[in-house]
Amino acid sequence: MRNLKLTIAYDGTNYHGFQTQKAPPVPTVQETLERVLGKLTKEQIIVHSSGRTDAGVHARGQVVNFRTNWVIPVDRIPLAVNSGGLPYDIVVTGAEEVDLSFHARLSAKEKMYRYYLYNHRIPSPFAQRYSYFVPYRLDLDAMAKAAEYYLGTHDFSSFRAVGSPIKSSVRTIYQSQLEKEDNMVVFTVRGNGFLYNMVRIMVGTLILAGRAKIKPEQIADIIDARDRQLAGVTVPPQGLFLEQVIY
Amino acid sequence: MRNLKLTIAYDGTNYHGFQTQKAPPVPTVQETLERVLGKLTKEQIIVHSSGRTDAGVHARGQVVNFRTNWVIPVDRIPLAVNSGGLPYDIVVTGAEEVDLSFHARLSAKEKMYRYYLYNHRIPSPFAQRYSYFVPYRLDLDAMAKAAEYYLGTHDFSSFRAVGSPIKSSVRTIYQSQLEKEDNMVVFTVRGNGFLYNMVRIMVGTLILAGRAKIKPEQIADIIDARDRQLAGVTVPPQGLFLEQVIY
Repeated sequence: MRNLKLTIAYDGTNYHGFQTQKAPPVPTVQETLERVLGKLTKEQIIVHSSGRTDAGVHARGQVVNFRTNWVIPVDRIPLAVNSGGLPYDIVVTGAEEVDLSFHARLSAKEKMYRYYLYNHRIPSPFAQRYSYFVPYRLDLDAMAKAAEYYLGTHDFSSFRAVGSPIKSSVRTIYQSQLEKEDNMVVFTVRGNGFLYNMVRIMVGTLILAGRAKIKPEQIADIIDARDRQLAGVTVPPQGLFLEQVIY
Repeated sequence: MRNLKLTIAYDGTNYHGFQTQKAPPVPTVQETLERVLGKLTKEQIIVHSSGRTDAGVHARGQVVNFRTNWVIPVDRIPLAVNSGGLPYDIVVTGAEEVDLSFHARLSAKEKMYRYYLYNHRIPSPFAQRYSYFVPYRLDLDAMAKAAEYYLGTHDFSSFRAVGSPIKSSVRTIYQSQLEKEDNMVVFTVRGNGFLYNMVRIMVGTLILAGRAKIKPEQIADIIDARDRQLAGVTVPPQGLFLEQVIY
């Protein structure tokens, strides 16, 4: 029995998220991957991911693992799976054989996400699938300063979707930065874990700072309050990319 | 009567090219634009473009003009049209009022195109709509050298789709260059006009040089021969962008 770890990239536009839903059946990345791996290995494959991504969210470096008796050199797996029936919007970018104790979610140490804001008076037809269009002026210095307040270990209850199952909401953020390239504003955040919708609420709150609705230092107050109502909106999924999972 | 010039960008993936077909009715950029402009102006609008683009080809700087009695300040036109019913994959990026003698096709002096090759062992789900995936090794120095042979005034019969209507096939190329950024190889070409499928055949021929099937200097022989059989294949449409029309 082998434990195989795959790194995958996908355009989430056409999927109802990563994780297979109970009912009704809708296309998910997991179901698509399991179907192709099942065909290739002639086994019933169950993949474990580093965590689900929501409908419309993209990934450059999602990680999954699965157990199999498939006999194939690991370096031939990406080509075999990519040409074995995966649609063009899901791609296996890497494969390695790992210890049987490895689990894509439980073994993950850190995750990195990026969120893209297309900030221009006029939208771009090429950015629409991969960013959130923001036509109004943003104070990027204020946003960059605001982003620094996310760094460190905090209870992020204010940045969690209402109704999420109650678990610890303390997380540590190691990197939180804002950059601009041409018309694209990019928020990069890396931490030891993220609550449901946390990155998208973080971005919605940065936009409040960018529009001078709050001062950058008020991010600290919003964190302290542990009140979802004080943070910004949950920005839409298409700007979000799971960049990397670190083990 | 006003003559209005619009600059438009579009993702060509979902369209059967720019130009409205006779029958059967299929979605085209022209038909979509005329429908929205007709609704806004309450007139029967006919747009003239700088030239059609084929099914699947994209544009960052297509230009059209149309005559109308529409009373609106020109600087308000992009927002009015973009929010007036255009789908997300077609965007008006600029508008100006021009002399009645201006015609988007007949007045054009030069056009610039770009073609994108995604050159990596493994495809990218985010590049698939906007580039041609080339997994094999390309000699970029040979391709860049080959591209220089396109410069100048030549009879480009070898680079014209078979069966095109017989007209002069002499064109002048002012810019022909190859660059690489990350995994993307970008061919930029600017000239006083282009034959049907010319850019895509130029790229197919550069790939022959990149794979050492021909030497760069053989481009000159292929041009001289005026024989479509000697040039490379017509590469697919999704890598092609109409960047700019110069008047």
